[in-house]
Amino acid sequence: MKRIADSTVRRLSIYLRFLEEFEGRGLATVSSEELARRGGTTSAQVRKDLSFFGSFGKRGLGYSVPELSTALRDILGLGKEWKVVIIGAGKIGAALAQYRGFRQRGFVIMAAYDTNPEKIGRKLEGIEIRDMKRFEDDVAEQKPEIAVLAIPPDEAQSSLDRIARAGIRAVLNFAPVQLHATGDMTVKTVNMAMELEGLTFALTNKDGN
Amino acid sequence: MKRIADSTVRRLSIYLRFLEEFEGRGLATVSSEELARRGGTTSAQVRKDLSFFGSFGKRGLGYSVPELSTALRDILGLGKEWKVVIIGAGKIGAALAQYRGFRQRGFVIMAAYDTNPEKIGRKLEGIEIRDMKRFEDDVAEQKPEIAVLAIPPDEAQSSLDRIARAGIRAVLNFAPVQLHATGDMTVKTVNMAMELEGLTFALTNKDGN
Repeated sequence: MKRIADSTVRRLSIYLRFLEEFEGRGLATVSSEELARRGGTTSAQVRKDLSFFGSFGKRGLGYSVPELSTALRDILGLGKEWKVVIIGAGKIGAALAQYRGFRQRGFVIMAAYDTNPEKIGRKLEGIEIRDMKRFEDDVAEQKPEIAVLAIPPDEAQSSLDRIARAGIRAVLNFAPVQLHATGDMTVKTVNMAMELEGLTFALTNKDGN
Repeated sequence: MKRIADSTVRRLSIYLRFLEEFEGRGLATVSSEELARRGGTTSAQVRKDLSFFGSFGKRGLGYSVPELSTALRDILGLGKEWKVVIIGAGKIGAALAQYRGFRQRGFVIMAAYDTNPEKIGRKLEGIEIRDMKRFEDDVAEQKPEIAVLAIPPDEAQSSLDRIARAGIRAVLNFAPVQLHATGDMTVKTVNMAMELEGLTFALTNKDGN
C-alpha cells in the first residue's frame, strides 16, 4: 500500500468521530462538505483522503453514514481488540490506566510495568503493576501489540530498545524526548507542550493582540 | 492575518524541535529538505509553511538555525511565560502538574482547581489545589491565559462554559468528548484514543498483516 501521511490518518480519526456523532443523531448520509467543515479542512481534501482506500459515496448523494463509519473503523484497525501494556506506573501511567476513552475504542490494558519494588504487586486503577523483570516473558506469552511509554525522558530510549527486542512493534511515547525507532517499529510521541503551542499560537496571532 | 490551519501550526512546532536539536549540535544552517525529511513532509511544504510568516532562508544556503528558531518561537508565542490553570485535581491533573515538558517551554502552572473538599488545600506536585468556588476571583486577579480541562466527560461542557465566562480564551481539553466553544475561544482536545489509532492504522496496514 502507498505510504499514507500521519496527517491523513489523523483526519480519518476525526471524520470517524463526526460520523459516529451523526449516527447517534440518526442521520443516514453526510456530504464531503459537512465532513470538511467539521474537520477544518476542504471537501477536496476529504475526498482525496478517502480515495486512498476505495470508492465511497455517490455524487450528489454524499456518503452513507453507517457504511463510511464501518469502513473507517476497518481502515483504522478498530474492528478488533488491541492489547496494550503501560511501561511506568507513575502519574502519567495512572492517568492512562483510568482513561475512559481507551476501553470505548477496544483498547484493553493488560498490565503496567515498573521497577520500583514498592509499586510492584499493587493495582493501578484495577490494573496490576508487574515487575519489569517479567516484561519479556509476559510479552512472549500474552502478545500485547502496543506499549505505552510513561517514564522519565532519560530512560525512554533504553526502554524503547527493550520493547523492540521483546517484539512489540507499536509504541505511544509520553516522554518529552525524540526517540529513535528501529526498522519496522512505529513510534508516536505525544507532546503535551506541543499541544499547548497550538493555543499560544492562537492567542498570539488573534486580532488585537 | 490569514487563517492558518492547525496542521501548519503543528508542523511549525515540529520544525522548532528539530532546529533546537540542531542548535544543540552546533549546526549553523539547515536546508528545507532536511527539515522536511525529519518532519515527514516535503520541502515544498516546509517553504510554504514558513512563507505565511515572512521570508526566511537563502536559495542554496538554507536557513540560519538560530534565526529560524527565534522566529518560530516568536510565531508560536513562546517568547513569554504563559500562566496555566488546571481544572480537576484527579489522575490526569496530577500527571500534567508534574509534566516536565511544560516548564521547559515557559508554561507556569498557577494552581489546580477541584470541588472535592478532601483535595482542596493539598498540593499536587507542589501546586496548590484550590476550591473551584474561588476560580472566578482567582482568574480576575491572576489572569491566567490557558486552562487545562482534566475532568470527567459529563462535566466538561459546563466547566468550559464557566472558564469562558471567567475570561480565559484558550483551553486544552483532556476529556474524551467534543466540546462547543463560544466565539473567540480556542479549544484543543487531546484525544489519547486517537493517538493510539495512528498506531493501529500502522499495525493494520503493514505488509504481511
